[in-house]
Amino acid sequence: MNYRLIGFVLGEIALIMGTLLCVPLFMALGFHESDTILGFGVAIGICLFLGIIGIIIRPPKHKRDLRPSSGFATCGLFWIFLAIIGAIPFCVSGYIPNFMDALFETTSGFTTTGATILTDVEALPKSLLFWRALTQWLGGMGVLVFVIAILPRNDKMSTALAKAEIPGPQFGKLVSKLRFTTRILYAIYIAMTLILVMLLCICKMPVFDSFCHAFATASTGGFSVKNASIAAYNSVSIDVIITIFMVLFSVNFNIYYFIIIGHVLKAIKNEELICMLLIYICAVAAVTINLCTSKVYDNVADALRYGSFNVASVFSTTGYGTADFVQWPALSQVILLVVMCIGGSAGSTAGGLKVSRLIVLSKSSFISLKRTLSPRSVYSLKFDGKPMDDATISNIRSFLMMYVIILVVSTVLISIEKHNFPGNYSMLETNFSAVIACFNNVGPGIGAVGPTGNYASYSIFAKLVLTIDMLLGRLEILPILLLLHPKSWKKL
Amino acid sequence: MNYRLIGFVLGEIALIMGTLLCVPLFMALGFHESDTILGFGVAIGICLFLGIIGIIIRPPKHKRDLRPSSGFATCGLFWIFLAIIGAIPFCVSGYIPNFMDALFETTSGFTTTGATILTDVEALPKSLLFWRALTQWLGGMGVLVFVIAILPRNDKMSTALAKAEIPGPQFGKLVSKLRFTTRILYAIYIAMTLILVMLLCICKMPVFDSFCHAFATASTGGFSVKNASIAAYNSVSIDVIITIFMVLFSVNFNIYYFIIIGHVLKAIKNEELICMLLIYICAVAAVTINLCTSKVYDNVADALRYGSFNVASVFSTTGYGTADFVQWPALSQVILLVVMCIGGSAGSTAGGLKVSRLIVLSKSSFISLKRTLSPRSVYSLKFDGKPMDDATISNIRSFLMMYVIILVVSTVLISIEKHNFPGNYSMLETNFSAVIACFNNVGPGIGAVGPTGNYASYSIFAKLVLTIDMLLGRLEILPILLLLHPKSWKKL
Repeated sequence: MNYRLIGFVLGEIALIMGTLLCVPLFMALGFHESDTILGFGVAIGICLFLGIIGIIIRPPKHKRDLRPSSGFATCGLFWIFLAIIGAIPFCVSGYIPNFMDALFETTSGFTTTGATILTDVEALPKSLLFWRALTQWLGGMGVLVFVIAILPRNDKMSTALAKAEIPGPQFGKLVSKLRFTTRILYAIYIAMTLILVMLLCICKMPVFDSFCHAFATASTGGFSVKNASIAAYNSVSIDVIITIFMVLFSVNFNIYYFIIIGHVLKAIKNEELICMLLIYICAVAAVTINLCTSKVYDNVADALRYGSFNVASVFSTTGYGTADFVQWPALSQVILLVVMCIGGSAGSTAGGLKVSRLIVLSKSSFISLKRTLSPRSVYSLKFDGKPMDDATISNIRSFLMMYVIILVVSTVLISIEKHNFPGNYSMLETNFSAVIACFNNVGPGIGAVGPTGNYASYSIFAKLVLTIDMLLGRLEILPILLLLHPKSWKKL
Repeated sequence: MNYRLIGFVLGEIALIMGTLLCVPLFMALGFHESDTILGFGVAIGICLFLGIIGIIIRPPKHKRDLRPSSGFATCGLFWIFLAIIGAIPFCVSGYIPNFMDALFETTSGFTTTGATILTDVEALPKSLLFWRALTQWLGGMGVLVFVIAILPRNDKMSTALAKAEIPGPQFGKLVSKLRFTTRILYAIYIAMTLILVMLLCICKMPVFDSFCHAFATASTGGFSVKNASIAAYNSVSIDVIITIFMVLFSVNFNIYYFIIIGHVLKAIKNEELICMLLIYICAVAAVTINLCTSKVYDNVADALRYGSFNVASVFSTTGYGTADFVQWPALSQVILLVVMCIGGSAGSTAGGLKVSRLIVLSKSSFISLKRTLSPRSVYSLKFDGKPMDDATISNIRSFLMMYVIILVVSTVLISIEKHNFPGNYSMLETNFSAVIACFNNVGPGIGAVGPTGNYASYSIFAKLVLTIDMLLGRLEILPILLLLHPKSWKKL
């Protein structure tokens, strides 16, 4: 690793974070929320200090090269830094006095998980609520992607960082310059977020709530400003709009770019998009039928409304709730857990395994079956019409193994201590679904961590494990795992 | 497929099955169990009839070639046949009147799962109990392997069938002739079973019970003749002996062969063996500490006794219970579920994913990590000191994907209906663990299907799904999956 370079970039990130922190600071000043001003002030101060240090130790221009393989670990490092800085306002203001709790909440924000340790969200002042929503919005498309979009940088390092931060098995630039690619992505992101804000305002959601919910929807994060989440508004039109946008934001953003430049046919024939919509439709159909036949809702319209919203919510890994699906029958719960694990498309703001990985894994297993029957034939795996190289396939298969190992190890780790959750839930189910919900960046799980529950009852150690799971999930394992590898720390 | 050949071999298998069915028939006659004589008689009659048909339609000698790729589907077909024939005595005798129930019970026997739908095992006559134990003993080392051991057969077809039936990612003959390899395996199996019978008799277990329990231990099946399973004897020495033998029978049998021919060092340096023992020791230590700290048992000795027995029971996928681990704390339950999924070694009678697959999967993922850091270096995966070819690695990785898909799909399928289990257990947990327990050929799961529960409350459809899972687990997916592929049915 090139420590001076990393210090310099960290300083730049700190300066941008500091600038962004000014928005909630001004809100705190405007709304006279005196108890949060200090928190934001301290965070901004630290950012400024780190920014100045970064500029002082900056390496000369010709030494600003990052080994591409260091990109992953560097990305992991920056994200841990972001979570720590972002936690300061919660901690200093006293609204989340325990630093581990604040770190959990902020990581849950940046990683767009939406899991919360707060039992009463509505008690938070507006500036903190806005900061909470803003962390999600930034984390959704990627904080480093944001930095790349606004700061000129040498392309090699930016590519390494963007590769590590943008989810999905493959990374493809839209245009030759990475900086412009990131600007295009953010432009689409901002435009869609603003459209959502407008639509929510039209549906009579208060303007502040609209912004916060639009941020949390766009990033498929799921933080709400209401204790009852979106159910608090009890509005069919709001439910429908958010359902549609949760699905829209779990689509690969490249598809929107292709639509904008006129390649509509290419966009809608995308294999991952078709597969994702099929999974969504099947899941909604199954859940709706299950809810109807088991008489959870009296009429099909209600079952469809709550079914489609909550499936979209967990499939896109947003995690808003309009119903307490912990009370739903077993089939619906299993389906919710399965779509949680699948997650949205690569290159979207959604978490999870990603539909494209599922397609490649299924195809490669099918090829393996065919090879058993005709060992001498030659098979090649095509994804979206193009043959896929062996290294990528191998990486995706390793990803599955690491995914399973992380699920298992995390469940074991958080089961070590006994946690006293309210209600008579199965501890095993709660722990397993908590790991699934955090690792896939969903938020609410099944059992005691369902839509009406929260993560407050977990011990400090369990919260730390779940925090790491959120980072592992958002950055897709490698950046965090490689942080532990000594080779990542070798000097350039 | 060569239908005439398959019919002929099926006839041979039927004749051997018929001969074996004579043992419980004679027992029924000897013990004057008049209600089971008809059942065994009908089964033997059908076997005889099929045997004669097989001899009549036998293909000429030069046409007795099976395409190697057909071996898998043929193996799957034979196993379904075995389960149907084996179910007849239960069904006709009226002890398990519903045929689907009888099929579940027999498949659970042959696949060495040990899951039962019987609420009162002790009500069964001795001849049926013996048949139940015998199905497990035969299924453990493999029925087709047994047929190959006693009937002379052309080696190409036998190898294809043995490959499909013997568990593990790789198949290696011990000696050049397959028939002798299978005879060596069965000799070791018989010798170890008899030693176990003697030891159990010495510990004052009744002779009949000793035989039945030795059969079910040797095959890592887990059917007991007591409702309370091994706990009924409440004997430390029996617990210890069975614990040791459960571990011994989940070791690759090739290792015993190497020890017999004097290659002791080669045997004990086996990578899979070392890894398996390490997993076992760690799991026992964790469970024992967890049981002590959470005060389930008052003293360490009891915690160690019940911990080591029940971990060995589920790790070897036997499924005997000496404690109701459904009441254990969450950590112990998670560990039990994890070791259930891992299962024993390849080439043993244990089920599950197998330790060797876990090693290869972990190593290949680790190599993938290293490749990210140094893309230009060349890595090769070594297993047990020898480099492993890419095709085998690819197959193992596909196996993991199919394993996960089967777990998920089965859980969804058995969750479709609402099952009324006694007690206030989480349905999701029960269904998920039932699939894990059946697919990995363990038997008891967590929740309502724990050691004190049973599978009686599941619907016919759910039982069918779980029966297929047991076959998928025992034959390691491919033989059953390839039955569905049209190419398997193409004429030679």
